[in-house]
Amino acid sequence: MCKTAYEKLVELGEEVQLVGDTQALLSWDQEVLMPPKGLEYRARQMAWFSGWVHDKQTDSKVGEWIEEAESELSADSDEVTNANLREWKHGFERETKLPRRLVEEFALAQVHAKSAWAEARGKSEFSIFAPHLQKLVSLCKEQAECWGYTGTPYDGLLDKFERGASTVRLTETLNDLRKSLIPIVEEATATPPFDRSCLEGHYSIEKQKAFNHEVAVAMGFDFEAGRIDTAVHPFCSGMAPHDTRLTTRYDETDFLSSLFGVLHEAGHGLYEQGLKGELRGQPVGNAVSLGIHESQSRLWENHVGRSHAFWERWLPTAAKYFPHLASVDVETMYRAVNQANLSYIRVESDEVTYDLHVLLRFEIEKLIFSGDLSIDEIPDAWNSRFETYFGLPVEDNANGCLQDIHWSLGIFGYFPTYSLGNINAAHLAAAARSDASIKSDMDAGDYLSLLTWMREKIHKRGSILMPDDLVAEATGKPADAKALINHLRDRYLPGS
Amino acid sequence: MCKTAYEKLVELGEEVQLVGDTQALLSWDQEVLMPPKGLEYRARQMAWFSGWVHDKQTDSKVGEWIEEAESELSADSDEVTNANLREWKHGFERETKLPRRLVEEFALAQVHAKSAWAEARGKSEFSIFAPHLQKLVSLCKEQAECWGYTGTPYDGLLDKFERGASTVRLTETLNDLRKSLIPIVEEATATPPFDRSCLEGHYSIEKQKAFNHEVAVAMGFDFEAGRIDTAVHPFCSGMAPHDTRLTTRYDETDFLSSLFGVLHEAGHGLYEQGLKGELRGQPVGNAVSLGIHESQSRLWENHVGRSHAFWERWLPTAAKYFPHLASVDVETMYRAVNQANLSYIRVESDEVTYDLHVLLRFEIEKLIFSGDLSIDEIPDAWNSRFETYFGLPVEDNANGCLQDIHWSLGIFGYFPTYSLGNINAAHLAAAARSDASIKSDMDAGDYLSLLTWMREKIHKRGSILMPDDLVAEATGKPADAKALINHLRDRYLPGS
Repeated sequence: MCKTAYEKLVELGEEVQLVGDTQALLSWDQEVLMPPKGLEYRARQMAWFSGWVHDKQTDSKVGEWIEEAESELSADSDEVTNANLREWKHGFERETKLPRRLVEEFALAQVHAKSAWAEARGKSEFSIFAPHLQKLVSLCKEQAECWGYTGTPYDGLLDKFERGASTVRLTETLNDLRKSLIPIVEEATATPPFDRSCLEGHYSIEKQKAFNHEVAVAMGFDFEAGRIDTAVHPFCSGMAPHDTRLTTRYDETDFLSSLFGVLHEAGHGLYEQGLKGELRGQPVGNAVSLGIHESQSRLWENHVGRSHAFWERWLPTAAKYFPHLASVDVETMYRAVNQANLSYIRVESDEVTYDLHVLLRFEIEKLIFSGDLSIDEIPDAWNSRFETYFGLPVEDNANGCLQDIHWSLGIFGYFPTYSLGNINAAHLAAAARSDASIKSDMDAGDYLSLLTWMREKIHKRGSILMPDDLVAEATGKPADAKALINHLRDRYLPGS
Repeated sequence: MCKTAYEKLVELGEEVQLVGDTQALLSWDQEVLMPPKGLEYRARQMAWFSGWVHDKQTDSKVGEWIEEAESELSADSDEVTNANLREWKHGFERETKLPRRLVEEFALAQVHAKSAWAEARGKSEFSIFAPHLQKLVSLCKEQAECWGYTGTPYDGLLDKFERGASTVRLTETLNDLRKSLIPIVEEATATPPFDRSCLEGHYSIEKQKAFNHEVAVAMGFDFEAGRIDTAVHPFCSGMAPHDTRLTTRYDETDFLSSLFGVLHEAGHGLYEQGLKGELRGQPVGNAVSLGIHESQSRLWENHVGRSHAFWERWLPTAAKYFPHLASVDVETMYRAVNQANLSYIRVESDEVTYDLHVLLRFEIEKLIFSGDLSIDEIPDAWNSRFETYFGLPVEDNANGCLQDIHWSLGIFGYFPTYSLGNINAAHLAAAARSDASIKSDMDAGDYLSLLTWMREKIHKRGSILMPDDLVAEATGKPADAKALINHLRDRYLPGS
């Protein structure tokens, strides 16, 4: 029997995904295991896959199939069919505008830049990373030119990570958020720093691993279909329908660093494990955007992991692994994990100052892509802006513009999705907690009903809806920052 | 400028290797890390790559290029050119005889069989593995039919692992070897078992890892271009020119198990690291055969690792990691690692009984492929034959026919290369030691000059020569079992 154009697109998508997922393993392995001299060859492998995927996706017959499938659409086509076609069309239009040469060059440059960044960060020497960054920025500008834009090239880059996002609208959202945050930040950081000396002690990596594992299992993370490993920069890779891998990093003087890494990445991992595996390779079986992905990680990290209820449930277990914690009470622990602090590192910052870090990176990126900031000027621009926002002098690029891995992956336009994630996480958490049984479960330290809600409302919906519509469908109204601001006020200014 | 047919073949070979090497990572990852539910998807990925590689290798234009390149050959073509063409032609002829369907089916079956074998071995239940084994045997028979044969289908299978090998000749070699071994085995196993109680103690895995690492570095293994990980069945994967990965397994009551795993696999690894990386993807840049590969692993495991000189050098270091070894003297250690024993497990057996294990597996395989033994009859056939050879009743299939991973990979015809490896290892070691400076270095526990010799004579020669010719070139005469027998007599019957 002859296949329909739609069926051919499904089949092609599955093949591209199957092969593309190999690239995810190659990339994961580079971060976690690959010996250093393997770099050059790995870069060539990555480039080959990028080229192959590009060729498959841009084959002229794909365009014909899309047209044919559209013409077969009827008024009562289901939402799955409509969404797949919407995304295939969008992807095809974008991908065909890129020459294969650019795709391969980008993949090659990424692998080398990632390695140079790690070295530059280690030595705190921006100059080691600068030529790689220059290269990636040029390639991204070239991509943006291929795609075309009306406002700024940055718009085209945003679309890689957040379908439907625009620079203008994001600027508005983040500036509004900043205005609401500033008074909370000022008040929250005015209190004298919390004395954490009662937490001091040795936390063996083996015991941290065992404790984190227990927590992740309780969250619902399936270890038969996933793992936790160690990497410099924590991340989550959903590299197959039943193979979701998290990484975290360990500090033997502080178990909270690896724990919050796991809470965050397992949030991403639960989303990946909650997608419909049988639809993998179709847009409707894939995560819809980073702003939604990040809503899941921040939900588990902050709304679960930094809650009073969480520590009521988990402090006794932590004390089994780390006996000196037996003398710490829940209130102290709760305050320790919710201390507002003007500090250098985004991923270690508290919830209330976090978005200021994001805003800073967003502003720098916009300047780079509007042509108002050259690569060499980045450290100074970063440092002076950081001092304005945080009142702290940056003496060390490793704690400044080199702290994050993203630029080394050629990822520009990604950072603002972190703030979208925070906004969405609070908005979704508030909606879920408006269900009395979910609220009482969460307050009792039990998260199964929360996960079930997310599975139904978010995970299983894949990319059927656009990100904004998905949140609106799940919660009954469009997301805005109100829930986040309320949450932060409750948590950081409980008396006011 | 137009490429010559030869250049096109080089280019194609490099691409096939680059992509095929990804499959090596997928396979390594399945053994070492992959979560169990990832199996099904991984199987589909493996099958895709097998199919893709097959398509590339059997494209009709490859045949045309080979013909064209052959016609361009002149009388003074160099050995590299000649060898590449010899191997391309041989590979093309074999590969084009296989339908793509069979190639993919085989890859799929392997992944499932490997997982079923692990379960079957764990539970010692042959029936769990039997249907998978049946499937793989059928597929291998089908392969052999495609290739055609004059004697037995087993000949075609042998060629996968040992170019130029034949069932008849191997049978002769192994039977001769057995005849020479039997009196040594009888005498060596007649002495009362060595009292190993002085070695008893706790060997933490972390310390074993550190000790093994030190030994591997001293051997010349480059950790900037390789790693050691943990797996149920120790193996070595040369998955890229500068990415060679070993695995071993740990026993907290016996550090020798992981150490000899590392010595053996690092022997393979040194060969992989010694190949000319810039020629990867051309036959001349690849290892020539398993009988040669195994000569390198057995050389380091036995001729180095079980020597008196090795323990003079390493026992003091071992005692730093494991203080209770401080009271053990070198002579005792030497005897402990050279105790002849009639035992169940091939990979743990001593040098003198090792080849009897191989012979047994070889005989069973021949019976399977001559149609004289059905799958269900394997355990009984194994057990009765084992009792005849070893005088021990097999009460447990995990210690019997299920002990080795190979069949689960659809690998038949591989086992005899272990004995070829032993023969070649002794032959090469004798030749190297005929150089007085190598001998004196080895006897002083220094192996750099030995490695340099192997690099020049074996590793860098890749597949330029056929296996037998390579050994003859390196040593000045064809390999035979004399050096092995002399070595075993010296080591196991020192008084006689």
